[in-house]
Amino acid sequence: MRVIPGEFTPPARLLLGPGPSQVHPRVLRAMAAPLLGHLDPAFVAMMEDVKRLLRFVFATENPLTLPISGTGSAGMEAAIVNLVEPGDEVVMGVNGVFGTRLAEVVERAGATAVRVEAPWGRVVRAEQIEAALRGCRRPKLLALVHAETSTGVWQPLEDAVRLAHDHGALFLTDCVTSLGGVPVEIDAWGIDAAYSGTQKCLSCPPGLAPVTFGPRALDALHGRKTRVQSWYLDLTLLERYWGEERVYHHTAPISMNYALREALRLVAEEGLPARFARHRLNHAALAAGLAALGLELAAEEGHRLPMLNAVTVPEGVDEARVRGQLLAGRGIEIGGGLGPMKGRVWRIGLMGESSQRVHVLAVLAALEEALRAERRLPAPGAAVAAAQAVYEA
Amino acid sequence: MRVIPGEFTPPARLLLGPGPSQVHPRVLRAMAAPLLGHLDPAFVAMMEDVKRLLRFVFATENPLTLPISGTGSAGMEAAIVNLVEPGDEVVMGVNGVFGTRLAEVVERAGATAVRVEAPWGRVVRAEQIEAALRGCRRPKLLALVHAETSTGVWQPLEDAVRLAHDHGALFLTDCVTSLGGVPVEIDAWGIDAAYSGTQKCLSCPPGLAPVTFGPRALDALHGRKTRVQSWYLDLTLLERYWGEERVYHHTAPISMNYALREALRLVAEEGLPARFARHRLNHAALAAGLAALGLELAAEEGHRLPMLNAVTVPEGVDEARVRGQLLAGRGIEIGGGLGPMKGRVWRIGLMGESSQRVHVLAVLAALEEALRAERRLPAPGAAVAAAQAVYEA
Repeated sequence: MRVIPGEFTPPARLLLGPGPSQVHPRVLRAMAAPLLGHLDPAFVAMMEDVKRLLRFVFATENPLTLPISGTGSAGMEAAIVNLVEPGDEVVMGVNGVFGTRLAEVVERAGATAVRVEAPWGRVVRAEQIEAALRGCRRPKLLALVHAETSTGVWQPLEDAVRLAHDHGALFLTDCVTSLGGVPVEIDAWGIDAAYSGTQKCLSCPPGLAPVTFGPRALDALHGRKTRVQSWYLDLTLLERYWGEERVYHHTAPISMNYALREALRLVAEEGLPARFARHRLNHAALAAGLAALGLELAAEEGHRLPMLNAVTVPEGVDEARVRGQLLAGRGIEIGGGLGPMKGRVWRIGLMGESSQRVHVLAVLAALEEALRAERRLPAPGAAVAAAQAVYEA
Repeated sequence: MRVIPGEFTPPARLLLGPGPSQVHPRVLRAMAAPLLGHLDPAFVAMMEDVKRLLRFVFATENPLTLPISGTGSAGMEAAIVNLVEPGDEVVMGVNGVFGTRLAEVVERAGATAVRVEAPWGRVVRAEQIEAALRGCRRPKLLALVHAETSTGVWQPLEDAVRLAHDHGALFLTDCVTSLGGVPVEIDAWGIDAAYSGTQKCLSCPPGLAPVTFGPRALDALHGRKTRVQSWYLDLTLLERYWGEERVYHHTAPISMNYALREALRLVAEEGLPARFARHRLNHAALAAGLAALGLELAAEEGHRLPMLNAVTVPEGVDEARVRGQLLAGRGIEIGGGLGPMKGRVWRIGLMGESSQRVHVLAVLAALEEALRAERRLPAPGAAVAAAQAVYEA
């Protein structure tokens, strides 16, 4: 090779976008540990810890709880291709990027996607879901995105689980962005299957997708008439690798599993109720500061996620320039909008390690400066002061 | 959580199994760097380096050369589901675990798998391949495993590429274990598509699967009549994320890409010819030492991989006990056999960083001791001396 690129040193960043979130130094250090073989007894014991810790954050006793060796989208695909067979009817809420993606994955699995649409930024209503289920011949699955990362909408699940079961369907949820940031009660709410990602409120680098399958989902999996179309994501094979048999399937991403174990240990040390309260508090402070800047949240009131805040860009403001100024000038990453929200929102993530008082104040101060550069003239310090008032309340 | 598991410290291991291989401290350190967003300009620039470095190890100019966000098996599945459509005929060599797996992935993609079988430990012959291609209506693809990790067989590819093209078929190779250890000349040999893994001769932790698609493979991809069944592995979407458009698809595993970049830099610094020569030399020394212990290689002579040595377990020796003694007593991991070779071979990997003189001598000395414990009585020091003679020649 003529010119070998030099050592890569990432620039300093405060990650307040839609993920990846900030990663704790203990997690970074865990990844730098020497490798083990994927069938080494010491690694196998570590896999057991990972499963146990995942059951803890998912609030479940499901034995089939493990990280898929891919990112959150691989978790989505794993859930669908294992639960769904060609010809099945699947009902899903579509009110953002990830509901839209769910429908596409369902169709690629040969099933029929019954889309229950709501405007981006609003939740899908139980009445709509019920009507869709009633319109099906025999719905196999109802799937809802718990935390829609593209809009910041927090979808209620409990009524929907009941509706699914009333209609003989399984219930699946996408909790990529919610897990570890707000309650995800797999067993208490009766959720049959769920998938998540590591790089949001678990504050682990991206690369693994925790999934959990409950008893009804397992029955569907084991009673399939057709083979799972994906060999890589086939849970009937993966449960034998991650289960007692330890039958070789693929080589698990060793270092990523080290990282996930350490990230989950941090979650367990903090405790879920404290972690959820921290996410709520920092969201409230951010929201107060944004309001002081005259900025509005795009998600429906009462259904706003604490860890993902979609902020409506004011008329006349160049949203990309503001984001660019935060990134290049302050080293702060926030996200832009996707799909119909492209150019219309900023997405400020306060996920896991990113959800900290210092970060909230830093992003508010930076936004204030950027808006001033856009000839908006917010009162100096007003945003930070409004957020501080929430912390001091 | 009642009892939080303690910090995980992996026991010291010398990884001389079928992968993962030893990872250089520079690569471990690279993974511990703070994260960037997956659309950050600094990360995007890093992705370009990764693509350029991958083209270098694949010896190709193919623009569509990138790491799939999964392990080697995800690379296999990506290659198949992107190239193959339901009803296509695919011819593949089946003489070990990975050829067997290829056939299964092909069938799950709705295509017809035409298996060209050879005994495990032997190569698939060109005559057999030609007969199989001739027997097809219209073969879409010929796929061969370049380095069969289950047997240590080194499959010649060049004649097979010509045969594929003569019959109007594309040529795909699995170079998971060969890439970076022996020549893989994508462009010079006319290979249309290939996939690999990171944890073998590239000596990067597992978690990514480099793939490359040449012009004919791209034509097949872009001319598909059906959608790729996997959304996660759909290269028509991935090429837009890894290409100039940077259209968000999934969140790339940031830290794993840092690691791959650094591992590839180490490959480039050593240079491919020197790296291949190192793999050959250490293999020759190991083979000499094994011969001095009265041990035989299971793969056909003349077609033995330098980086994966399947060693026939002598009659009356407890293969699992020997492996256990190496692992528990000496911290050395070697692999056992798979499928019909289970209990019949040890697999000694000398891949990437693992392919070192000190490691060869260490594993030979440990094997000698283990065989003595099995009441075999090799001449003391004979194995190490035989290997040393190769190094000193």
